[in-house]
Amino acid sequence: MCVRMKRVMLTVAYDGTNYSGWQIQPNNVTIEEVLNDHLSRLLGEEIRVIGASRTDAGVHALGNVAVFDTNARIPGEKISFAMNQRLPEDIKILDSREVAADFHPRKQKCRKIYEYKILNTIHPVPNYRLFTHFNYWKMDLSLMRKGAEYLVGEHDFASFCSVKTQALTTVRTVRSIDIQKDEASSIITIRITGDGFLYNMVRIIAGTLMEVAEGKYPPEQVKDILDARSRSAAGPTAPARGLTLIGMEFLEEKKEEDFSKKIPEKN
Amino acid sequence: MCVRMKRVMLTVAYDGTNYSGWQIQPNNVTIEEVLNDHLSRLLGEEIRVIGASRTDAGVHALGNVAVFDTNARIPGEKISFAMNQRLPEDIKILDSREVAADFHPRKQKCRKIYEYKILNTIHPVPNYRLFTHFNYWKMDLSLMRKGAEYLVGEHDFASFCSVKTQALTTVRTVRSIDIQKDEASSIITIRITGDGFLYNMVRIIAGTLMEVAEGKYPPEQVKDILDARSRSAAGPTAPARGLTLIGMEFLEEKKEEDFSKKIPEKN
Repeated sequence: MCVRMKRVMLTVAYDGTNYSGWQIQPNNVTIEEVLNDHLSRLLGEEIRVIGASRTDAGVHALGNVAVFDTNARIPGEKISFAMNQRLPEDIKILDSREVAADFHPRKQKCRKIYEYKILNTIHPVPNYRLFTHFNYWKMDLSLMRKGAEYLVGEHDFASFCSVKTQALTTVRTVRSIDIQKDEASSIITIRITGDGFLYNMVRIIAGTLMEVAEGKYPPEQVKDILDARSRSAAGPTAPARGLTLIGMEFLEEKKEEDFSKKIPEKN
Repeated sequence: MCVRMKRVMLTVAYDGTNYSGWQIQPNNVTIEEVLNDHLSRLLGEEIRVIGASRTDAGVHALGNVAVFDTNARIPGEKISFAMNQRLPEDIKILDSREVAADFHPRKQKCRKIYEYKILNTIHPVPNYRLFTHFNYWKMDLSLMRKGAEYLVGEHDFASFCSVKTQALTTVRTVRSIDIQKDEASSIITIRITGDGFLYNMVRIIAGTLMEVAEGKYPPEQVKDILDARSRSAAGPTAPARGLTLIGMEFLEEKKEEDFSKKIPEKN
């Protein structure tokens, strides 16, 4: 009987509170490491996942994506169930499926959706603490929305990028920024969709829009901050706990083309 | 200068995950104990709170209520801020204010609102794990709503009460049961308002309504369960983690009367 090598795509959700981010590093527990360990034990071979988004320490995900290759016979779609029996409560696989052998989650064109959540109340609320940033300053959402408008579209986001970046270009396209407040919980959600994000970009956007909403400077200054192309022009990097990678959408044309390819069998 | 004894009411929110419930007990950490300890240290005198609802181990609150008496000079409304500097992240005071000296949160007529949350997906989701009960069975909300209708009104809820109860009567009034599903998160919320609840009553209602929604028995059987007046007739007690005490409303007439009373001064 022939053993078939296959590539499996995982949709991964995690509460990032207790992890040093996605990417493996010495002396710290990371999401990537936990996935590699449990997959290797489940499948009986050394597994190394490739993640779509290497989220920072403390950042959460409802839909990060990872792929890996395996010779194991277990069908791709069963791996989520088997893994969820083993994984800790704060990391779970929401979907698993076989994909084309050349599907690479960081080379594939895709759209990412992030949400930054702000608890805007007088006192912090325990039930919301893990997934929101607590900010008690009065915020004007109409100012915040006005400031956000300057960021939508293709821009050089050098001002909204950590100086630690290794990116070749700081030009990115933000597709939309939607800002809503849930009155029952007083949680403000900034939902950002884009074709790619620079290091800390969403958190610096959130930090800047909070300053606009607090009235520290007018919404029009967001345009000046963009033009400055300097990290020091923008607001602070908002804390990691408020940020969740909601999901990513791999662009249809490419996806269908890839998915239709026959997976080569090995002798 | 005279020292004035005053009664202070706290609105308390907590993530109950790591506590053995509200009420003090030996060898376990409880919400009541943590409040007593921090209040005593803040105010420099021995403080003993009286809680409105002695929630069970693992149950959460967005608005439980407690009162205590103090001779301290700090204004009642400042106590929340001072306490939140000291309290752990999973217990916070959302409001503090002076009330009439005879205001007793368990003797006062009040309406309580509870929410039971069910994550109804194929796989558990880490971000929702602390405040939802994960149930992957397909649920029909129209059946659940039909079953819930039998519970609204004044009934003998003996079937929906833990056998451990010390209640003199098992007759209670449920004012409303509202059932909604959030499509984005697949979280079903059962919101129950009533004038008082028996031990485990909301969790047994939730456990029974889940069985109705799963099609284990028809909604009409909820009436038979009520009529049986026996705990064994109802469904299981749903897990504590899905339950949150949302808040309580002290009935206006009584409240205004009490609030208008002058607080006696001590010499």
